[in-house]
Amino acid sequence: MAGKRHQVPSRVRVRRGPKKGRYDRASIDDVLDRGLLAHVAFADGGDAVCIPMLYARVGDRIYIHGSTKSRAVRVLADGALACVTVTIVNGLVLARSAFEHSANYDSAMAFGTFTLVEDADERMRAFEAFTEKLLPGRWDEVRRPDATELKATEILAMEIDEASAKVRAGPPDDDDSPDAERDTWAGVVPIVRSYGSPEASPGLRPGIGVSESVRRLLTRDPPG
Amino acid sequence: MAGKRHQVPSRVRVRRGPKKGRYDRASIDDVLDRGLLAHVAFADGGDAVCIPMLYARVGDRIYIHGSTKSRAVRVLADGALACVTVTIVNGLVLARSAFEHSANYDSAMAFGTFTLVEDADERMRAFEAFTEKLLPGRWDEVRRPDATELKATEILAMEIDEASAKVRAGPPDDDDSPDAERDTWAGVVPIVRSYGSPEASPGLRPGIGVSESVRRLLTRDPPG
Repeated sequence: MAGKRHQVPSRVRVRRGPKKGRYDRASIDDVLDRGLLAHVAFADGGDAVCIPMLYARVGDRIYIHGSTKSRAVRVLADGALACVTVTIVNGLVLARSAFEHSANYDSAMAFGTFTLVEDADERMRAFEAFTEKLLPGRWDEVRRPDATELKATEILAMEIDEASAKVRAGPPDDDDSPDAERDTWAGVVPIVRSYGSPEASPGLRPGIGVSESVRRLLTRDPPG
Repeated sequence: MAGKRHQVPSRVRVRRGPKKGRYDRASIDDVLDRGLLAHVAFADGGDAVCIPMLYARVGDRIYIHGSTKSRAVRVLADGALACVTVTIVNGLVLARSAFEHSANYDSAMAFGTFTLVEDADERMRAFEAFTEKLLPGRWDEVRRPDATELKATEILAMEIDEASAKVRAGPPDDDDSPDAERDTWAGVVPIVRSYGSPEASPGLRPGIGVSESVRRLLTRDPPG
């Protein structure tokens, strides 16, 4: 990728650790699709605000949603410049020196502005994508949004046209340094995510077994 | 906490789901201390930027660090208004309706500006805090930063004086709705983090066993 860096727009170019940067859509989409939560930053008046939000990618768009009463939704729908960042931490990087300690992670960052999605079909597809991202197969098991819920919810979309991914993987960087002569253990301790046992809602009617979607989920790797 | 909400500064007040808001330092510090990674948002020129960063809390301050050559460090050190958000996802919230699907999470958000830490002792304490946050006990096992490393690194601090936490926990919200009559399983699927087996660095000298800090870590819950 290094040879293509001059074509990368300035604000998504990975400057610190440029070899960690990825600018192809497959790499970016991979992180977006594995992550569960995004941090969405925007300016609100003079302030910078950073809010954790559920999201979903469909094609070239990142969708988020929120109450029609949400200030963040209003500010974003008004065209505030936004940055969507998704980060999955994969491990502790333990070097022989304090300085070289780090974390392994996959991240993706997309810049742009959100627009309100008005089209009824696209809005419903976004609802489906949010539900399916949390739990594949869930959309077909649950009640679809009704008119009241649709009216209370704004769906916003950002085009993925200025984005990058950044990946730090592998061992610490001091294997080839004089520090490698030290007696200190160095390496990576992976951070692993898994699903715990499903906890039925207290109000669940007796005799209802765990959904098929949940059973399938428990055999898969969880999202980031 | 509801009765104290009118005293909370506007930009940290939790408006959507106000019962989820926490404004006491113990709740805020709890999230900051359990999280591993922060998302730091700030305005850079006209853009909003959101960067994942390792961090540490010491007393009333959140510390981050970066290369002296980092643009983010320069912009933050110049006094850009910043927002530090730490989010720990704890589970999938599966309701009977698509609309009520959600995630359980703990988050903390702090607003303010960063200042460069110039004091040599405080800088070294911050390095210690970064190292100890990744892996308690690690600081005493590794080589401390030397003059070259200290010169290449900026430490920045933000006072925690305008912050809030937001917590979503427990079952889906539709136990008391007509949807509870449906045949759909509802509940929470916990997301659990754990540590995998330590992976020695390829350049590790033969005969060096896993550090005591790593052995202790593997008996603990991992950070968020």
